Amino acid sequence: MLACASRIDVEHAGGAYPIFIEPGLIHAAAEMLAPYARNDRLIIVSDGQVWAAQGPRLRIGFAGAGIALIPIIVAVGEQAKSWSVLINLIDRLIALGVERTDTIVAFGGGVVGDLTGFAASILKRGCTYIQIPTTLLAQVDSSVGGKTGINVQAGKNLVGAFHHPAAVLIDPTALDTLPERQVKSGYAEIVKYGLIGDAGFFNWCEAHGHAVIAGDLEARIHAIRASVAAKARIVAEDERETSGARQLLNFGHTFGHALEAETRFGSALLHGEAVAIGMKLAFGLSVELGICGKEDPDRVSEHFG
Amino acid sequence: MLACASRIDVEHAGGAYPIFIEPGLIHAAAEMLAPYARNDRLIIVSDGQVWAAQGPRLRIGFAGAGIALIPIIVAVGEQAKSWSVLINLIDRLIALGVERTDTIVAFGGGVVGDLTGFAASILKRGCTYIQIPTTLLAQVDSSVGGKTGINVQAGKNLVGAFHHPAAVLIDPTALDTLPERQVKSGYAEIVKYGLIGDAGFFNWCEAHGHAVIAGDLEARIHAIRASVAAKARIVAEDERETSGARQLLNFGHTFGHALEAETRFGSALLHGEAVAIGMKLAFGLSVELGICGKEDPDRVSEHFG
Repeated sequence: MLACASRIDVEHAGGAYPIFIEPGLIHAAAEMLAPYARNDRLIIVSDGQVWAAQGPRLRIGFAGAGIALIPIIVAVGEQAKSWSVLINLIDRLIALGVERTDTIVAFGGGVVGDLTGFAASILKRGCTYIQIPTTLLAQVDSSVGGKTGINVQAGKNLVGAFHHPAAVLIDPTALDTLPERQVKSGYAEIVKYGLIGDAGFFNWCEAHGHAVIAGDLEARIHAIRASVAAKARIVAEDERETSGARQLLNFGHTFGHALEAETRFGSALLHGEAVAIGMKLAFGLSVELGICGKEDPDRVSEHFG
Repeated sequence: MLACASRIDVEHAGGAYPIFIEPGLIHAAAEMLAPYARNDRLIIVSDGQVWAAQGPRLRIGFAGAGIALIPIIVAVGEQAKSWSVLINLIDRLIALGVERTDTIVAFGGGVVGDLTGFAASILKRGCTYIQIPTTLLAQVDSSVGGKTGINVQAGKNLVGAFHHPAAVLIDPTALDTLPERQVKSGYAEIVKYGLIGDAGFFNWCEAHGHAVIAGDLEARIHAIRASVAAKARIVAEDERETSGARQLLNFGHTFGHALEAETRFGSALLHGEAVAIGMKLAFGLSVELGICGKEDPDRVSEHFG
């Protein structure tokens, strides 16, 4: 693989995998993904929006490398994390002759990553996959840590697997085509890392959060790097959410999930928006319970506006 | 758990689990399973035939222990290893409020074990399960080693997970109600362990195979014990079928699978029957290829009749 300015390794029970953070990675993907191609082809799962916006950049280099990119396009949005889309995806992967030694690439936001990772996990009892997250939320949170899955009628992410990718390629310039509302949603998870154990990073967010949202590349790289490093540390400590450390990552998510369920996980409330409100509510509850003073919650509320 | 005359431990990357082999275990299950009950209840997945034949023996002791047994009954036969039965099973487990800390008991043959193990593997990204195999095939093969899964249109076991049970309880007296054809089918997998690396055990099979099939308890215990020990050794060496050692266990299965596919995995040809023919064909091929002499295949053909 390319030498990369920014590389963070995630350690887990079964080994470790690298996360590369670098502007232009999508453009250079052919070189990085070539070792994973089998029979001169590579299967990419994406959704229609991402494929239209970022697909052309990804394709660059593959023709020259003699590798055929085979896209499988799934529905846009949370509804793709369903049994029916999963079954259809698996049928198509089998029809393409995917073997355990194949590597499947997830190219999109958290939905595409969760769905593809889960399909890879159960197809022939486990294939390799690689994450190329294209939303801020996926880059700082869902692409790291190996949680994959789908939603069922009774709730979100109730069916899934812990299945780590072989690598994660994070290209911050992928966010250039992302709507601001989606950027802000992902930003909530960034702030979360400050709030759950890094006061210095929360200070940084207060000073530079507007730059992250406005599109400043240096600020985005710093924010992504700090978030991924924090998550990698927590995952290494408590991979399967058994010791409690990983539950920290759910800060704001209890209230958040309830709000998302109330709005039926639709576009009225994005995941990060729900988490931001959830964190404010959690702080409010802590004040009520006398666990923390009023000053901290005020800072959080002010920061999220 | 009870002290057990016969206990074999299976070691795997994530730990180890015990396999208990003892006549009367089903009858004594309440005592062994009590530590796994949560909120004074235990969920058992079974099929209608097994539940009718063996359920009453299993229930004994649970009332006295104050534990409610909650059965979920799935369809009999290979068709239960399907997406629709899996989805329905998971919906029912969720409706019962199953958490990651719950233990689900698979009580039946290979189909029930494979289906239940897979459901446990993906429900909330992994619940605990325990195998109580009730067919000879499941006792000597499918309940050991952590392979779980379902069939899809394109083929058998193409979707699944490696997910080890917390324990396996093998009661050879469960076979007393098993039709002879099913016993013979399971017996083929026993002979396989002799053929793939234990000539002494194959000699034993030639001398005592008829007793195993006829129902001699001592012979059955010996055959189950030898088979489970052999499988545990191979699984410990090559848990995920990567080094090649575990592929030994597929001896006779390549031809066997083709024959099963030809008969649409129906009752015309049971799995063990297909494996027995597959092993004979594999030996025949080896003679053709000059890999082995004619004497060994003749012994195998004669043994299976």
